[in-house]
Amino acid sequence: MDTKTLQKSFGMRCKELRAGLGCSQEQFANLIEMDRSYYASIEVGRRNVSLSNLKKIADVFQITISELMRGVE
Amino acid sequence: MDTKTLQKSFGMRCKELRAGLGCSQEQFANLIEMDRSYYASIEVGRRNVSLSNLKKIADVFQITISELMRGVE
Repeated sequence: MDTKTLQKSFGMRCKELRAGLGCSQEQFANLIEMDRSYYASIEVGRRNVSLSNLKKIADVFQITISELMRGVE
Repeated sequence: MDTKTLQKSFGMRCKELRAGLGCSQEQFANLIEMDRSYYASIEVGRRNVSLSNLKKIADVFQITISELMRGVE
């Protein structure tokens, strides 16, 4: 299991869902009350995101964590 | 969003799936190459588990991370 690949896969999933909302990274980071540059580093796959941050992100997309993780491997 | 509730929900999901495998915590911790007491603390909801550990756990259950997170809220 390659953590980098997993993190990139998750970052792309977030980017795809965020684009669907028509939000900029800054707007989205504000919505999840997360530092913009930290959120930006999630999207480029540089963060081993924790459960609580997965939940924050899923909540703003109004989906479950399970739905958020669909296709993330 | 209450992190403690989320962590407990995830811990119970792991316990349920592990019971389905008929594994002890020690056996399962060995399978995922994780310290037994650390894994035990995940099951009782005391850990804000990271993406890479979610993947390790899902891989041993031979399910996707999305399936692992089903019902975890």
